[in-house]
Amino acid sequence: MILKKEIKYLVSLKQKKFRALNQEVIIEGSKLILDAIKYKQTIKKIIYCSKDEIFSEIRNKAKKNNIELALCSNKDAERISDTKNSQKIFAWISFAQPKKIQMDSMIKKNNFIILDGISDPGNMGTILRTCSWFGYYNIILTDECVELHNPKTIRSAMGAHFHIENIYKDNIQNIIKFLLRNNYEIIAASLNGRKLNKYELTSKNWALVLGNESQGVSEEILKKANVTLTIEGDKKMESLNVAEAGSIIMYQLFNK
Amino acid sequence: MILKKEIKYLVSLKQKKFRALNQEVIIEGSKLILDAIKYKQTIKKIIYCSKDEIFSEIRNKAKKNNIELALCSNKDAERISDTKNSQKIFAWISFAQPKKIQMDSMIKKNNFIILDGISDPGNMGTILRTCSWFGYYNIILTDECVELHNPKTIRSAMGAHFHIENIYKDNIQNIIKFLLRNNYEIIAASLNGRKLNKYELTSKNWALVLGNESQGVSEEILKKANVTLTIEGDKKMESLNVAEAGSIIMYQLFNK
Repeated sequence: MILKKEIKYLVSLKQKKFRALNQEVIIEGSKLILDAIKYKQTIKKIIYCSKDEIFSEIRNKAKKNNIELALCSNKDAERISDTKNSQKIFAWISFAQPKKIQMDSMIKKNNFIILDGISDPGNMGTILRTCSWFGYYNIILTDECVELHNPKTIRSAMGAHFHIENIYKDNIQNIIKFLLRNNYEIIAASLNGRKLNKYELTSKNWALVLGNESQGVSEEILKKANVTLTIEGDKKMESLNVAEAGSIIMYQLFNK
Repeated sequence: MILKKEIKYLVSLKQKKFRALNQEVIIEGSKLILDAIKYKQTIKKIIYCSKDEIFSEIRNKAKKNNIELALCSNKDAERISDTKNSQKIFAWISFAQPKKIQMDSMIKKNNFIILDGISDPGNMGTILRTCSWFGYYNIILTDECVELHNPKTIRSAMGAHFHIENIYKDNIQNIIKFLLRNNYEIIAASLNGRKLNKYELTSKNWALVLGNESQGVSEEILKKANVTLTIEGDKKMESLNVAEAGSIIMYQLFNK
């Protein structure tokens, strides 16, 4: 049985400051937890509130992987949960914070997806999910981005967090310096750029920048971008959602 | 000043059954309301809670368009609002419910986007936003879809509702019958189809079907589909979000 003080602690992880301080978070639901086990995340405990058959697969896998299991009451489950219709199974996991850019020692990757001030946690999660779908596992966030381990972000990322190979978070100046020093082709999504479907990649080393939901990509980055790309449409709507624009551009880049 | 009984009524519109019964809904925020005025929606009243400069553009446009204005208190605004950080300006609008399929009298359109059991209101809104971006203004929903005028759907659609030309909601059997009778090329998004980027459209009359978040496109539709399309990826993730898959396929169809 889970201890009272543990429940208290897990409830505290609903707050951003405690997640950041402790570098721990609660993830919910069978599917996500099975993925966390499969992809060897650091799971401190799996907490569930029913001995029903429904959780037997997770319990068996937890035992095989020496992950501690703890029962909790329905009431406790409701307190821990961040969702309305909780599945009432949770994993208490540790995570590493995104690193700062390491200007010269950072391993050079072919591609980076750069999220510049993404503020909606659902969008952030969806974008990470798409990045993982296309195999773009190296991500850079500007300091203005929403928290990587926000519960809504985790939920909409559907396990993409477990596939990220490198993730950095830094200020825009350092990110630009890094990209320029390493000769990345900087591709920015914008509403007034070249037509995406006519665009030919000129470099194997590219970095795609997706901007804030209302402001778009920062001026500083736009100034240094090698190309800005626009998705043509019918011109009645002001913009596409940034996650949609990101998906479409990643699709196009993936198939070049 | 808004009347007490009106506030009570507007609060009732937070519930689906009252929205359906009265075919009315509250939309929130300056941008959306300006769009509603611009695109001639049926606005019964605009309700705002401050005489500040910030709302003067809307108030002027409302007057020009003979739309009634009403002040409300901050407390009332909080009661009406569906969001955490309300902008405290609302439009009370009427809408028409989606029609049933009219088997033979229905105006034939070149393309339809068919949403088959989309259950998440945010996804529904995002998909409608993308449809509008690409100029796909004819939509068919299966009966299993989430409500078209759910406040979250309206929020994430960002005004796409105002551009839809025709929207139908019916059971899958009638939808299939309509598509077959009118020789539509039925294109279904799926995880095991042909590669999207190799696909060549063979007809100008096509209907793209996007399926439920966890079940995908219904078996009945898959059986009748002319082609199922898959977005290639890196194979670690189980699936893409349906709104992302939809955006990518619409982009591809738009550029064929």
